[in-house]
Amino acid sequence: MPIYKAPVEDTLFVLYDVLKMDGYGNLPGFADAPRDLVEAVLGEGARICEEVIQPLNVVGDTVGCKRNDDGSVTTPPGFKEAYKQYREGGWMALSFDPAYGGQGLPLTLNAAIGEYLSSSNLAWGMYPGLTQGAMAALYVHANDEIKQTYLPKMATGEWTGTMNLTEPHCGTDLGLLRSKAVPNGDGSYSITGQKIFISAGEHDMSDNIVHLVLARIEGAPAGTKGISLFVVPKFLPKADGTAGERNPLSCGKIEEKMGIHGNSTCVMNYDGAKGWLVGEANKGLNAMFVMMNEARMSVGIQGLSQSEAAYQNAVAYAKDRLQGRSLSGPKAPDKPADPIIVHPDVRRTLMTIRAINEAGRALMLWTALQADISHRSEDAAEKQKAEDHMGLMTPIVKGVLTDLGFDNAVKAQQMYGGHGYINEWGMGQFVRDARITMIYEGANGIQALDLVGRKLGANGGRAIMTFFNEVGTFCAQNKDDAALGPMIGALSKGLKDLQAATMWFMQNAMAKPDNAGAGSTPYMHLFGLVAMGYMWARMARTAQEKLAEGADERMTAKLATARFFFEQLMPESGAHLARVTAGADSMMALPAEAF
Amino acid sequence: MPIYKAPVEDTLFVLYDVLKMDGYGNLPGFADAPRDLVEAVLGEGARICEEVIQPLNVVGDTVGCKRNDDGSVTTPPGFKEAYKQYREGGWMALSFDPAYGGQGLPLTLNAAIGEYLSSSNLAWGMYPGLTQGAMAALYVHANDEIKQTYLPKMATGEWTGTMNLTEPHCGTDLGLLRSKAVPNGDGSYSITGQKIFISAGEHDMSDNIVHLVLARIEGAPAGTKGISLFVVPKFLPKADGTAGERNPLSCGKIEEKMGIHGNSTCVMNYDGAKGWLVGEANKGLNAMFVMMNEARMSVGIQGLSQSEAAYQNAVAYAKDRLQGRSLSGPKAPDKPADPIIVHPDVRRTLMTIRAINEAGRALMLWTALQADISHRSEDAAEKQKAEDHMGLMTPIVKGVLTDLGFDNAVKAQQMYGGHGYINEWGMGQFVRDARITMIYEGANGIQALDLVGRKLGANGGRAIMTFFNEVGTFCAQNKDDAALGPMIGALSKGLKDLQAATMWFMQNAMAKPDNAGAGSTPYMHLFGLVAMGYMWARMARTAQEKLAEGADERMTAKLATARFFFEQLMPESGAHLARVTAGADSMMALPAEAF
Repeated sequence: MPIYKAPVEDTLFVLYDVLKMDGYGNLPGFADAPRDLVEAVLGEGARICEEVIQPLNVVGDTVGCKRNDDGSVTTPPGFKEAYKQYREGGWMALSFDPAYGGQGLPLTLNAAIGEYLSSSNLAWGMYPGLTQGAMAALYVHANDEIKQTYLPKMATGEWTGTMNLTEPHCGTDLGLLRSKAVPNGDGSYSITGQKIFISAGEHDMSDNIVHLVLARIEGAPAGTKGISLFVVPKFLPKADGTAGERNPLSCGKIEEKMGIHGNSTCVMNYDGAKGWLVGEANKGLNAMFVMMNEARMSVGIQGLSQSEAAYQNAVAYAKDRLQGRSLSGPKAPDKPADPIIVHPDVRRTLMTIRAINEAGRALMLWTALQADISHRSEDAAEKQKAEDHMGLMTPIVKGVLTDLGFDNAVKAQQMYGGHGYINEWGMGQFVRDARITMIYEGANGIQALDLVGRKLGANGGRAIMTFFNEVGTFCAQNKDDAALGPMIGALSKGLKDLQAATMWFMQNAMAKPDNAGAGSTPYMHLFGLVAMGYMWARMARTAQEKLAEGADERMTAKLATARFFFEQLMPESGAHLARVTAGADSMMALPAEAF
Repeated sequence: MPIYKAPVEDTLFVLYDVLKMDGYGNLPGFADAPRDLVEAVLGEGARICEEVIQPLNVVGDTVGCKRNDDGSVTTPPGFKEAYKQYREGGWMALSFDPAYGGQGLPLTLNAAIGEYLSSSNLAWGMYPGLTQGAMAALYVHANDEIKQTYLPKMATGEWTGTMNLTEPHCGTDLGLLRSKAVPNGDGSYSITGQKIFISAGEHDMSDNIVHLVLARIEGAPAGTKGISLFVVPKFLPKADGTAGERNPLSCGKIEEKMGIHGNSTCVMNYDGAKGWLVGEANKGLNAMFVMMNEARMSVGIQGLSQSEAAYQNAVAYAKDRLQGRSLSGPKAPDKPADPIIVHPDVRRTLMTIRAINEAGRALMLWTALQADISHRSEDAAEKQKAEDHMGLMTPIVKGVLTDLGFDNAVKAQQMYGGHGYINEWGMGQFVRDARITMIYEGANGIQALDLVGRKLGANGGRAIMTFFNEVGTFCAQNKDDAALGPMIGALSKGLKDLQAATMWFMQNAMAKPDNAGAGSTPYMHLFGLVAMGYMWARMARTAQEKLAEGADERMTAKLATARFFFEQLMPESGAHLARVTAGADSMMALPAEAF
């Protein structure tokens, strides 16, 4: 059985030592969350994840969700009971507006616990995760009546939420969507159409399921400008607020898929189901984007989560499995062989995963903190800067942490040799579950295009210039430090490569847009590398400061891991730059028929 | 249902246009295989793979193998019937010695068809694949009586073979193995022990199963120097050569695993089973290495095969799936959207896979041709050079083509978005099946160690110096060619990086062996990149020569793909070199407890 222990100490290191979260007492919710409360919440979140939710991970994979003949869906054994504990613990609305039953704590805290939750059980975590995304969209775009009807029930977790975008013929290109909405004359609409890949679309864990559905109002323009967002509940709310009459919508099928078997991925059929408009007509994509940005951050965290869970297991195995002798002489001469953690190539793998996880965690929490600032600050300049940061970093957190998270799960599985390939040790599940994170909420190629095509140039490049300045200033301030110097040198080189790649796009993508598309994926990874490098540089400086106060093995390990990152992972930046600046020609030279 | 078409034209291009296989008429078997015969054999091999074996790939995955209560194993529906056709077609012993019923055709031809077979159905192909490996070991090491007893039956495919190395506590480190052999006094031994991960260990496709088993003769030295190889048949051969009495060995369990469900991965229990020594006592590892080298080449080919099969499907999907519009304006204005193959990031993916597959195929066939020369040439110098090449390239073909084959299967799956994650399209199977190739026959970390620790320094570095000279000479001869020049420049840079990394090991690994282990994996990939780059340079030159004779779309595509390889993939060489030369320190700094 796989193990998992939530990295609470590391979360606290990032939040308080690196990001100085205790300096944000001016933000609503932060003053109510002093460090001791945060520690208690993280500790309790860790406990429920480790003790209640993680033990259901394997059974979720092996038993999966079952659609019954009446269209209802039975979740794996234990899922429902764990959900009851989770929602009764108030976890669903930890950071949500108290006006609707939330606890108003920082989003950053919710993100930290989101990592533990997904590490424990990715498929399970999607049920509350999608609900939180739906709540965010309703909160920003729905009218008061809808908010009052749905949000308090969702905040307690009695009702869960979903997002319904994809149709068989349209995924990325939502302009093609065909689901129809016909006004009923009473302010409601009748929704008809088929949606696919609807995570948590039908299940037995909550009293009601609140579907957010993209559809086209009869007579609306074609393309993306004719799409509206509707709230379409499984049961129509009664006047007393409880779930009433069944709405004509149903799960037609559960998809058989590679992983996340514990989550019901449904084909949803809407057969004239009653729904209400969320936000303005024909502006559904804007409303959905709120949900999608939340969701993209969450998916990035999921990528990190699988990498972390797989890492912890690989470490335990590498310390335990005896095979071969160290190249530098036996390390466990009393045993028939040394534990494989003595082998440098095993170390390379473990250090790689570790270096990415710790930097990924810092990057994710840094970005979550910007979400708090952007939502809660009353300082316009601070707010704008935080929004810029989030816009820029969302595709990176999503695209880079999931690509690397999957790679790392594969690497961790590799540590087990043949034992990693059989189900017994559970390593294959991390790989199969992590795989979806590269795909959903916008496949990673789309994240890269969003970054290059939309985020880089937004507001005259304001966001990226701010990032360049911040990293450049940090490098300038620390380059002469004896210990940090070599790391700063590597980071500066990476930054220079990133700036050169950015400049290349400015000069070559306008006249020939294919150049932007061609370089987008290596650019996103180059950006991710520099962003993680910046996190490592900041963590290394912090570690050094703490070491100056006294010996601390954890801080020594931070410095060693930082060094590994800069020596072994950062050199990739030059290759990425070369890929970007080679341009589109070699990719586009062949006619489609030549493939 | 996934599609597959064997790339016969590309095989022929490599064999005849690049490798000039028609110049080897001096080798036994080659004169009997003029080009028209080779074309016919490849064509017929392609047909049986495409029409008979590939249609069983999905059912093999979904139904899998079943162990019955009596310990017998039922293979998936259709497997047995397909095997009958295959063996009756004479495919099992295509390249085997006619003295034992083989056809004596070039091994190169067998390797080419091995790719088609594994692309069609990796799990199915393992049954004959392991048999061929077992035949090779018996052929080289067994005495005449054993050869006469087993090889003709295996050559017809009536009997299949397996290799039994792994035990629960020992995989890589065979010195730990515990299976025992006790002499019976009549020249036979009683074998007792448990073996795990035995592919094709028990099944219903053949009349007998010939197990090659590593065990320790009672009183033999500990470690690898006390291991012997035994042939242990499921049924003891009778005097008339047919299968007789059942030997006390059995399949205790079939492993549940991530993929290759169509192959029975067995726990094999030997309970005093009768076996005969193959080769000398206590020299079992030498004998097994013959089998493992064959097997490693085959596994490398399997990696390529999954990449090719996944690629063909991704291409078909990318031409068919309509989503979004080209960045440079609509390409299919009559349709609701353009096929996704217009998008540069999709092209990047497809070109990456294609560039690796074509180079991988060339590298694999080049190495297979060296196997023919090493086995069949009577020119000692030529033979030695070929053996050197094989020793050097085996870990690269195995390690690099499987790592990249898996990555490519993942990339191909990504083209499908959410549709790649559900079982319906079959893309997940390529990923799950490809995953094993990175693990078995020596996990890829072991391949890298074999390369760096054993192959580089062998005979004073003779093999690698020969390779450096060959590539260097090619670069010198072609660098001034107007069209090839930029490619040669990139290849020369890669070669320089590889030479620098090699030199670094010479200077830094002797005093500190961990430096070799630490850099082994990036070194192996750097080597693979240069070897594939050399293949591309040769293919580009050949394509150019053919184009000089007249227009040829396939040759134009070769040049475009070569350019893509050098622009987009070759730049990785610098990053690999940086990883190697950073040394072991950052990997080994942390004490094991810090993980």
